[in-house]
Amino acid sequence: MQKIDNKIDIQSQRDYRNVLIDKVGVKNVKYPIVVEDRSNKFQYTVADIDIFVDLPCEYRGTHMSRFLDVLNSYHKETLIDNLEPFLREVKKQLNSKKAYVKIRFPYFIEKTAPISKIKSLLDYDCVFEASLSENFVDKKHDSIKYEEDAKFEFILGVTVPITTLCPCSKEISDFGAHNQRSYVSVKVIYNDFIWIEELVDIVEKTASCEIYPLLKRPDEKYVTEKAFNNPQFAEDIVREVTVRFLEDKRIEWFCVESENIESIHNHNAYACVTKRNINSY
Amino acid sequence: MQKIDNKIDIQSQRDYRNVLIDKVGVKNVKYPIVVEDRSNKFQYTVADIDIFVDLPCEYRGTHMSRFLDVLNSYHKETLIDNLEPFLREVKKQLNSKKAYVKIRFPYFIEKTAPISKIKSLLDYDCVFEASLSENFVDKKHDSIKYEEDAKFEFILGVTVPITTLCPCSKEISDFGAHNQRSYVSVKVIYNDFIWIEELVDIVEKTASCEIYPLLKRPDEKYVTEKAFNNPQFAEDIVREVTVRFLEDKRIEWFCVESENIESIHNHNAYACVTKRNINSY
Amino acid sequence: MQKIDNKIDIQSQRDYRNVLIDKVGVKNVKYPIVVEDRSNKFQYTVADIDIFVDLPCEYRGTHMSRFLDVLNSYHKETLIDNLEPFLREVKKQLNSKKAYVKIRFPYFIEKTAPISKIKSLLDYDCVFEASLSENFVDKKHDSIKYEEDAKFEFILGVTVPITTLCPCSKEISDFGAHNQRSYVSVKVIYNDFIWIEELVDIVEKTASCEIYPLLKRPDEKYVTEKAFNNPQFAEDIVREVTVRFLEDKRIEWFCVESENIESIHNHNAYACVTKRNINSY
Amino acid sequence: MQKIDNKIDIQSQRDYRNVLIDKVGVKNVKYPIVVEDRSNKFQYTVADIDIFVDLPCEYRGTHMSRFLDVLNSYHKETLIDNLEPFLREVKKQLNSKKAYVKIRFPYFIEKTAPISKIKSLLDYDCVFEASLSENFVDKKHDSIKYEEDAKFEFILGVTVPITTLCPCSKEISDFGAHNQRSYVSVKVIYNDFIWIEELVDIVEKTASCEIYPLLKRPDEKYVTEKAFNNPQFAEDIVREVTVRFLEDKRIEWFCVESENIESIHNHNAYACVTKRNINSY
Repeated sequence: MQKIDNKIDIQSQRDYRNVLIDKVGVKNVKYPIVVEDRSNKFQYTVADIDIFVDLPCEYRGTHMSRFLDVLNSYHKETLIDNLEPFLREVKKQLNSKKAYVKIRFPYFIEKTAPISKIKSLLDYDCVFEASLSENFVDKKHDSIKYEEDAKFEFILGVTVPITTLCPCSKEISDFGAHNQRSYVSVKVIYNDFIWIEELVDIVEKTASCEIYPLLKRPDEKYVTEKAFNNPQFAEDIVREVTVRFLEDKRIEWFCVESENIESIHNHNAYACVTKRNINSY
Repeated sequence: MQKIDNKIDIQSQRDYRNVLIDKVGVKNVKYPIVVEDRSNKFQYTVADIDIFVDLPCEYRGTHMSRFLDVLNSYHKETLIDNLEPFLREVKKQLNSKKAYVKIRFPYFIEKTAPISKIKSLLDYDCVFEASLSENFVDKKHDSIKYEEDAKFEFILGVTVPITTLCPCSKEISDFGAHNQRSYVSVKVIYNDFIWIEELVDIVEKTASCEIYPLLKRPDEKYVTEKAFNNPQFAEDIVREVTVRFLEDKRIEWFCVESENIESIHNHNAYACVTKRNINSY
Repeated sequence: MQKIDNKIDIQSQRDYRNVLIDKVGVKNVKYPIVVEDRSNKFQYTVADIDIFVDLPCEYRGTHMSRFLDVLNSYHKETLIDNLEPFLREVKKQLNSKKAYVKIRFPYFIEKTAPISKIKSLLDYDCVFEASLSENFVDKKHDSIKYEEDAKFEFILGVTVPITTLCPCSKEISDFGAHNQRSYVSVKVIYNDFIWIEELVDIVEKTASCEIYPLLKRPDEKYVTEKAFNNPQFAEDIVREVTVRFLEDKRIEWFCVESENIESIHNHNAYACVTKRNINSY
Repeated sequence: MQKIDNKIDIQSQRDYRNVLIDKVGVKNVKYPIVVEDRSNKFQYTVADIDIFVDLPCEYRGTHMSRFLDVLNSYHKETLIDNLEPFLREVKKQLNSKKAYVKIRFPYFIEKTAPISKIKSLLDYDCVFEASLSENFVDKKHDSIKYEEDAKFEFILGVTVPITTLCPCSKEISDFGAHNQRSYVSVKVIYNDFIWIEELVDIVEKTASCEIYPLLKRPDEKYVTEKAFNNPQFAEDIVREVTVRFLEDKRIEWFCVESENIESIHNHNAYACVTKRNINSY
């Protein structure tokens, strides 16, 4: 190994600018991951990962390679199922008070066509956002009860493609109604485990019609008529999801957005609701 | 100025690998441009520009700054209206046998809503691709009749957002029909000037219905019913555009692609036709 | 005009789900705009615009076409210089308590090469975010003192491309140092007008070296050596910008992010600081 | 099942516009796949897939669901290892003369840091393009020797991120040299199996230095100094790859592009060579 022992560790130099850095780290690290799957126990996919920590005023730089070190150490033990110990290790290796990770990945769920019952795989873009922060209320115990004092937060997110059909267009037209692909993005903080599949189910129930990769003719007739019988604005979608999320006591907080790729415009229609759930456990 | 006279001009070094480089230059240069506008004489927009030349075997590198030099020299004299002299100058400054430029930009056309007659601006992504190559058939005259020997080629392209409504869905369903935003991209080589607006008009005539930024209720009724009365597959769109382009003697060659953002799937439907027009002048 | 008078106005229907929608409106409307320019008074560019309002529990839907109506009415009077009246009109037409607009656009500034003094245009991605909310503290006066009660907020943002050279790489290596293009994104809330150009100037001063579209050989020598003499981590950049922003009493709040497209990795390095400025007026 | 037997099969209707459609099918189908891996036998990843056929003049439309049918039938038998039978089945089910498939996916290769020898996974964007066309020269045998007459073509592509350091900057500067992340995209047609890893190896050998996800301090010193000792233009990279590809008799045709994310500009430098290999078997 080449000698670099006489070189200064620039990152560890004392910094005198007195500026705490909120987040510093690595962005857009591509990584193969394994995710829990309700039907098949697990599935392989590929993630795009950001990992950050805070950096106290007194240090000049963070040590970027350590983020990858910790990521690599968790590879085989299934990163996704161990986000809290992963962040604890990041926090420890980077000597920080907070650690964050954001993991985006496509996830596949088997859909059954409504009439032909043919099965095919639909992709949903998911995101896991997790953070671990020291408990600043009770700082004196930091050194003693380190792990217990750190607060772990986890946000589960999924974007669900659906069909929406415009209620106004149906009402004012003598026949037909414009409809389009829409993307409904939901994020939740929960206090009891929720499957990606459960969030997808809730969103798909609010749609004018679900989307399927593979539809034979009788299926196409079914989805066309179902959507026509069930017109929904972007506003209706976010409200219906809101009503269902408020009824689920596991959900503490959520954000739901719906974006319609309007078939009659070259811009999109959008609606968004963010809420704490006062009904949660 | 700092002295660098004693430094080697690396780019001009003799290269011994005997590899002609087909294209070398700058990519994704952002630049404000002025484009001819059929209704308003001209419009301001912002372009994303690639400029390339070929590099003979014997030179190690091209001179990247000269591409920007030439681009800057054409700024005020309206680059877009002088693509041939622009490429001639690139070719000269870079000492090459070929020069290419690709200019992508959004272009706005005023649309009039079908019933309310309210006007609004719709954006179309355009592309101008031009090249200038020496005539290799008659090389001996190169030094003498330089300009006449160089062949200028120009491709005009525009992507038109439209509504398409599925003929199959309409036929098999008792009511309704799925429809979506589609993007129809056309490129043409012509022998007599064609406006962007003319290409847009041709494509919009093939649509189930045109798209508008602003539609009041009576307009929305109109576009919904028009689309329902006029179902078109992606295949129909490219064929209808093909038939119309073949009738236009100014068009020597064209490519037409249609891509539907399917409302019932999470993937797109696509069709493409590329053709020389044997009817052209 | 086709008769639709007997049709129900679905959007105005009473909604019983009791869900306030935080944001509803149009996304990704493309629109040509004119922006104030410190050197040339104004410049033409093209924007990507989102416009949202809140929607009270009792209404089923918003009226999407009115967003475009208001946008069109402001076109000729320079939308950008009238964001507060624009939002007031959106709020009025949509009958909402809040209105938001987000405008993203490329903006060009003339750069002078450091040695050759050749001028060229560099593009910077900018964003204007504005909102107007009713003053909920003193609601009884809403109808009387409408305008005074509404609170206008404006965030000015710009992304500045710069060169950064790694201090650690320089320190540990016997020669050379890895460097890369970085994007520094700053957003500020100010209490006294600040030019885009002023934010750009501040950020570029923190760089290892500024970026230029056009550099001749003596310029390239200059920027190479300047960057080598001035190594900066992503952490240094956000701290230097923070120190300068804290000294500017016009700035009330800011966020600064730096992202390095690392030349030695296939992922990026990132740092971020968000702060209220306690020194502001 | 709902009755649709009395409905017309619109797609199968006779078309009278006399326009052959070159390509029609599905785009951007997301799908989990398994790819052969030189070191680990296979790896799981996620693909973005386009599948097209030609459509003769006489048919109005293709049958989009059959593309997904065939895709689904190949899922478990490893699509990637059976692209020729896959296309044969697409061609058969769609009753076409040609079939195309384009499969884009991220692929991971373990990299060993040069000094610390720590291993980490680097992502490479890959593309498989395959087509199957009937042999038009000898059409009379179509019905008898169907399979032998169809011509299968396969293009293997990979994009390799590397470090490049500017030879000109190094030469003219008294110290330092600007460098950047570059993306080298190669595509090859071969007559004897080539691993993705072999193409990656060839490209990485031409780089100023390879890229690694994880580098400790001695590694960072190594890659900095190696890049400084080994300056390469975009032009050098495409020529070096060209020279190596021409020596490989398995390669019949190739295209190599290099794009530098210049650290001193906000645009990219680009070079490209496309060639038939006259030395191939």
